[in-house]
Amino acid sequence: MSTTQANKIEINKVATSKINQVDFDNLNFGSVFTDHLLECDFKNGEWQTPVIKPYAPFLLDPSARVFHYGQAIFEGMKAYKDEQDSIWLFRPDENFNRFNSSAVRMAMPEVPEEVFMNGLNELLKLDHEWIKKGLGNTLYIRPFLIATGEGVIANPSEDYKFMIILSPAKAYYSGEVKVLIAEHYSRAANGGIGAAKTAGNYAGQFYPTSLANKQGFQQIIWTDDATHTKLEEAGTMNVFFRINDTLFTAPVSERILDGVTRKSLIDMAKKEGLDIEVRPVLVSELVEASKNGSLKEIFGAGTAAVISPIAGFSYRDEYYELPKVSDSFAMILKEKLTNMQHKLIEDTYGWTVKVS
Amino acid sequence: MSTTQANKIEINKVATSKINQVDFDNLNFGSVFTDHLLECDFKNGEWQTPVIKPYAPFLLDPSARVFHYGQAIFEGMKAYKDEQDSIWLFRPDENFNRFNSSAVRMAMPEVPEEVFMNGLNELLKLDHEWIKKGLGNTLYIRPFLIATGEGVIANPSEDYKFMIILSPAKAYYSGEVKVLIAEHYSRAANGGIGAAKTAGNYAGQFYPTSLANKQGFQQIIWTDDATHTKLEEAGTMNVFFRINDTLFTAPVSERILDGVTRKSLIDMAKKEGLDIEVRPVLVSELVEASKNGSLKEIFGAGTAAVISPIAGFSYRDEYYELPKVSDSFAMILKEKLTNMQHKLIEDTYGWTVKVS
Repeated sequence: MSTTQANKIEINKVATSKINQVDFDNLNFGSVFTDHLLECDFKNGEWQTPVIKPYAPFLLDPSARVFHYGQAIFEGMKAYKDEQDSIWLFRPDENFNRFNSSAVRMAMPEVPEEVFMNGLNELLKLDHEWIKKGLGNTLYIRPFLIATGEGVIANPSEDYKFMIILSPAKAYYSGEVKVLIAEHYSRAANGGIGAAKTAGNYAGQFYPTSLANKQGFQQIIWTDDATHTKLEEAGTMNVFFRINDTLFTAPVSERILDGVTRKSLIDMAKKEGLDIEVRPVLVSELVEASKNGSLKEIFGAGTAAVISPIAGFSYRDEYYELPKVSDSFAMILKEKLTNMQHKLIEDTYGWTVKVS
Repeated sequence: MSTTQANKIEINKVATSKINQVDFDNLNFGSVFTDHLLECDFKNGEWQTPVIKPYAPFLLDPSARVFHYGQAIFEGMKAYKDEQDSIWLFRPDENFNRFNSSAVRMAMPEVPEEVFMNGLNELLKLDHEWIKKGLGNTLYIRPFLIATGEGVIANPSEDYKFMIILSPAKAYYSGEVKVLIAEHYSRAANGGIGAAKTAGNYAGQFYPTSLANKQGFQQIIWTDDATHTKLEEAGTMNVFFRINDTLFTAPVSERILDGVTRKSLIDMAKKEGLDIEVRPVLVSELVEASKNGSLKEIFGAGTAAVISPIAGFSYRDEYYELPKVSDSFAMILKEKLTNMQHKLIEDTYGWTVKVS
């Protein structure tokens, strides 16, 4: 056991790394974890000393609040290695701030910046060998916070556990994605928790998505729950539409997650001179644009897949195929963004942050 | 280790019961658990042998799906002991069926009746000393199912754990309850998961409820998320309104839980000759009825509290106090229902089921 410079994180290293057992050319997303994790408990009203220790299962009481009342939030981030073996993060402050916004909405304690950011930095430095160089190689970072307090009574927990786990990943390719526009099911309520990155939002999508899968669609484009006329998110991603040469995406709201990739693409599009409008997009507009040939692209945007192009959509039992475009905005933006993240081109936005 | 008659449940008893350490006259709801729990894992596509074993913490991987994507459902039930020391359940088939409806909505495997009901019966027989005689003494039963599969990828888990834990309880008394009618926040979306008894629905209520608490209100009456004009649930309970001598409660829907106490009260009211109407109730009706003096009672209905009378409500910054009524329908129904559950009066409905 040793102590970091910060003199605040306890570090307990593995005896033997398991890195040699991992085939880095054949990774299933989110299924392999590095040697260590960061853990920090909240009890008696305060955060305890963060600990970096070997990745391993941990004990929870059967009455732990997370099992019964769902206080659970997370973030998705990535670390990249440049050609000089330096490690980089992409806009980590955005994830940190959103994490704590989610915490507030779910009545959980906010995690101190020191614990989240210093903890992450130290963890990345310790497991640096798990980050491979080259476009398409990343280390997926999963910070999460769960309610560990005991007792089956529906009120906020007094105890919590914050953890960061790391999973090496290859470029995320999901195959051809056809989507179904939601006409009945929805992912978020007005005045609900749709803008929080909380566990229950995801579980709620699985059943409607499984129904879509059976019809041959990989994802659902979620619409507003009251009228099902406004396009909101695609699967677990934000969604963009290109009509003629203008990109559209919905404004964030209580129902729509404030995605880091989404906001980065908006800024990049502006700087690149692409037309972009942030406004509610109607299902009827999309159908109309597809019919008159002005709909060029639809794509999802999120940390895991970066950009996920959509091949076509179904609405009211009619399927609308998207054209193949030679000047795909999705591909232009994705290339620029991933090159910037991997430090292969200059970051003129100040978004990349070196781990040191 | 021994095997039950059913030859299917493995039983592993505690060496020493902890029952003597428990003060049964001073129990905080949901905080003390009996000696044993039932556990049954789902893996490789099938349910494994159920096991009854000592109540204790268990190990989970940090990437377990329940922490990240919220697949988690539960039920709330009670067991009662009559004067002859027989153990009784109240409409357990309703909880069993709702549990599996919740499972379907959350893309989880349904629990076989044999595992749920036989498992519960055997567990209750083993921990029978924890059920005390007399009105107001109950054993709260918490069956729950969580996703234990590993991996941070947002799709349904392949592995699950079903558990039943038991907690001795005194009559649940929450003090005077004043409620705030929701004008902004909401608990459920159209096409969402409000009708499922799933963990995330509860966590989403904590923050709005904490804001209400600061204003001096113990609970929120939830309204529909699109218009906030229809009264739907009170806190974590169904809600009834008495205007003149008629009781009203909203019909169940995708947004409203199909409560066992709620449906029992509806049937009892009908049989007792009380006027009852199941239809959407508007906030405006409630305000109007309060102003003209026809609003007599509001009460929540659920397994934990049975019936929870409400003293007054606030809407648009105005507080409406309820009158004190001498012929409280809430009290008439509660007495009848709890007496029936404890076998102190005849059960003419066939709702009580003996554990044997």
